[in-house]
Amino acid sequence: MSEQPDETPSAKGLSRRALLLTAAAGGFAVGGLAGGGIAASAAAAGHADGATGDVVDLSTAHPFYGTGAQAGITTPVQRYSVFMTFDYTGVGAADLQVLLARWSAAIAQLMQGKTVGEVEPERVDAIGKDTGEALDLEPAALTVTVGLGPGLFTDRTGLADRKPPLLRDLQLGDTTIKPELNGGDLSVQACADDPQVAYHAVRALARMGKDSGSAATRWTVMGFGRAAAGKGQSTPRNLMGYKDGTRNIFEADDLDAFVWTSDGPEWTRGGTYQVVRKIQMHIENWDTDRVSDQNNVFGRHKVTGAPLTGTQEFDEPDFAQQDASGSPVIPATAHIRLAAHETNGGVKILRRGFNYTDGINQFGFLDGGLLFLSYQNDPAHFEQLQSRLSRSDALNEYITHIGSGIFFVPPAPREGSYIAAGLFA
Amino acid sequence: MSEQPDETPSAKGLSRRALLLTAAAGGFAVGGLAGGGIAASAAAAGHADGATGDVVDLSTAHPFYGTGAQAGITTPVQRYSVFMTFDYTGVGAADLQVLLARWSAAIAQLMQGKTVGEVEPERVDAIGKDTGEALDLEPAALTVTVGLGPGLFTDRTGLADRKPPLLRDLQLGDTTIKPELNGGDLSVQACADDPQVAYHAVRALARMGKDSGSAATRWTVMGFGRAAAGKGQSTPRNLMGYKDGTRNIFEADDLDAFVWTSDGPEWTRGGTYQVVRKIQMHIENWDTDRVSDQNNVFGRHKVTGAPLTGTQEFDEPDFAQQDASGSPVIPATAHIRLAAHETNGGVKILRRGFNYTDGINQFGFLDGGLLFLSYQNDPAHFEQLQSRLSRSDALNEYITHIGSGIFFVPPAPREGSYIAAGLFA
Repeated sequence: MSEQPDETPSAKGLSRRALLLTAAAGGFAVGGLAGGGIAASAAAAGHADGATGDVVDLSTAHPFYGTGAQAGITTPVQRYSVFMTFDYTGVGAADLQVLLARWSAAIAQLMQGKTVGEVEPERVDAIGKDTGEALDLEPAALTVTVGLGPGLFTDRTGLADRKPPLLRDLQLGDTTIKPELNGGDLSVQACADDPQVAYHAVRALARMGKDSGSAATRWTVMGFGRAAAGKGQSTPRNLMGYKDGTRNIFEADDLDAFVWTSDGPEWTRGGTYQVVRKIQMHIENWDTDRVSDQNNVFGRHKVTGAPLTGTQEFDEPDFAQQDASGSPVIPATAHIRLAAHETNGGVKILRRGFNYTDGINQFGFLDGGLLFLSYQNDPAHFEQLQSRLSRSDALNEYITHIGSGIFFVPPAPREGSYIAAGLFA
Repeated sequence: MSEQPDETPSAKGLSRRALLLTAAAGGFAVGGLAGGGIAASAAAAGHADGATGDVVDLSTAHPFYGTGAQAGITTPVQRYSVFMTFDYTGVGAADLQVLLARWSAAIAQLMQGKTVGEVEPERVDAIGKDTGEALDLEPAALTVTVGLGPGLFTDRTGLADRKPPLLRDLQLGDTTIKPELNGGDLSVQACADDPQVAYHAVRALARMGKDSGSAATRWTVMGFGRAAAGKGQSTPRNLMGYKDGTRNIFEADDLDAFVWTSDGPEWTRGGTYQVVRKIQMHIENWDTDRVSDQNNVFGRHKVTGAPLTGTQEFDEPDFAQQDASGSPVIPATAHIRLAAHETNGGVKILRRGFNYTDGINQFGFLDGGLLFLSYQNDPAHFEQLQSRLSRSDALNEYITHIGSGIFFVPPAPREGSYIAAGLFA
């Protein structure tokens, strides 16, 4: 019922661009029901390339096994996400190996819309293997992506010398990260078009970690789909109301250059480094700011998403352009200037963000922000961009980074194998 | 593109049953794209009556104005919900009247997928009327339902003698409700199939309340759709994995008898009383319980949802049936026995629940539960059921009521009017 996007990063040039634009645009694969007429009119509107926001097809299932990256990185962004990190509480490397094997088998089932075992065993004294709340629900485009934190590669596990070459704690001099929202030995990113499906997946893995004594929950963020596309809109908006992702990575060449690892030990190749940041937005303050100032903060127009030097969202920003008084039209502190590859030696990262809300804070303010996830083949690329932003970004008045983590995401396992199997070879 | 369900409670007998079964079953209106074939096979499977979980049509828009109840009570349950209560901070009755009129105008716009005003005004010193994050998104079946709390009808507003006859604080002797999750002078229930649309709506209303000095945020719960229907499944599941809503109100006669008010002042007629409870579930404890015991707690089989005395979900429970040893098959403390209309003098309430999760609590346990909303024409009906449950329900070992509120929900305004206009006449 749905197109199965090709998860292999080495795939087909321009058709891959279309796929990734769909990811940026819509957050869901376009099912057979959507029909050619809608797709054609969306394509005519510009960058949407066949994605429409009209219909979400819950029968979409993505493959877990493969020869490329894990699902959930270039997969079209789903509408809902649960991100959770865990402390490894097992002994040596053996418990980790068993955990990753069991998680892999479970994820393969979950992504097909199945349970992780019997819900209601016949035996009167038996506990259910699966908690049941997603029973009979559709796969809902579920992807579950597993990452390995720096803390796994120490003397504790005997894996210190197996560490993915560039994996280490982020070097950012962060001062605002809350201890209870920091780090983790394992990460799980579950994305789906049905929140109950995403939550069930993480709950199932958390339960397996706990019952085996191998993994304890550490911190979590539940994100929701700024990925929803609407009429004539292809780029999702953050809670500040601005399009976010216009200059994301769309080309296969860029994925190869900036996202997938190509050296290091065999088992790591085709993997990527995952950075997660929980970024609180002071949205009530933001809402009292003049829109002309907001535009200068981002360097874009709010409604169209066009750079201040252009008229269309996908116009290339002209960072050199000056106004009559000789000031740059896109201010020196504008977010898009500081984050641009043109001003960062060409560096790009693949972003996959979700909005989140934590309700009302202790001061009575709406508490929300961005669950920022980026994928890159060198954590230094994120550090370079973030260091620059943390020094000068006009946005800093309105945001605080409160959570952080870094993980290596091994490539997808082949059928019959499991995540990071080569680590234990 | 979508069927517009008739919101008028006095409507058409059996077709209304089909509509309400859709509500119980699916959480979304069945759009034209779903096709007759799928609908026919779903109907053949039993109670689904045309609802399928395959496709969510985001173009669905519900009317705000009407001659019956507000939308969001019998409207097919959407996949996502934001519930928020507010303290009234205005002066006298005049500020309340203005607030309700402004909220009504805004809600009418929002439910059509529009903004509440300009996002990016031309004037360089202007603040945006709308925060923009739902710009261009579909209506996504948004409903926004406004309730009035007991605290509005006091000397402070001069409206003490206008109080809806049965509106008063719940009389339950609650000991577990957290003060910060209790009460409120106004309630807003926003439900939509796109979380960003639901959140934007509540944010817009909160901002209007704050900017006018008339309403301050009090507490909130974000719920997600246990409403998703799957293959052959018509009743959503709670986070304990059990179907919840099998015996909900489905018949128009029951709505008239138990939900809509028919006496009291003119402006209140056709309204209803809204009870909200934030019910924490100790899901990790629950997950360690034997399923045979879980079945006894609910009085139902986990997978099928059938009562312990039956084999199909919609079999009538036989509360008199005994096993070989003379014990009741559905235990005396089973949830469905204690909540049943047969054992409560015929009383029924209309439930509209969502699951929620608050992530991980301070003990490292998964923190989740049920955002319970019920609608009834007499709050005493809820009190009767809840008092009985709180004394004897086997479920109490696994749940704690931590939030509570009660509100009167006036009927929908006619076009050109606003919510509770008659209160100020």
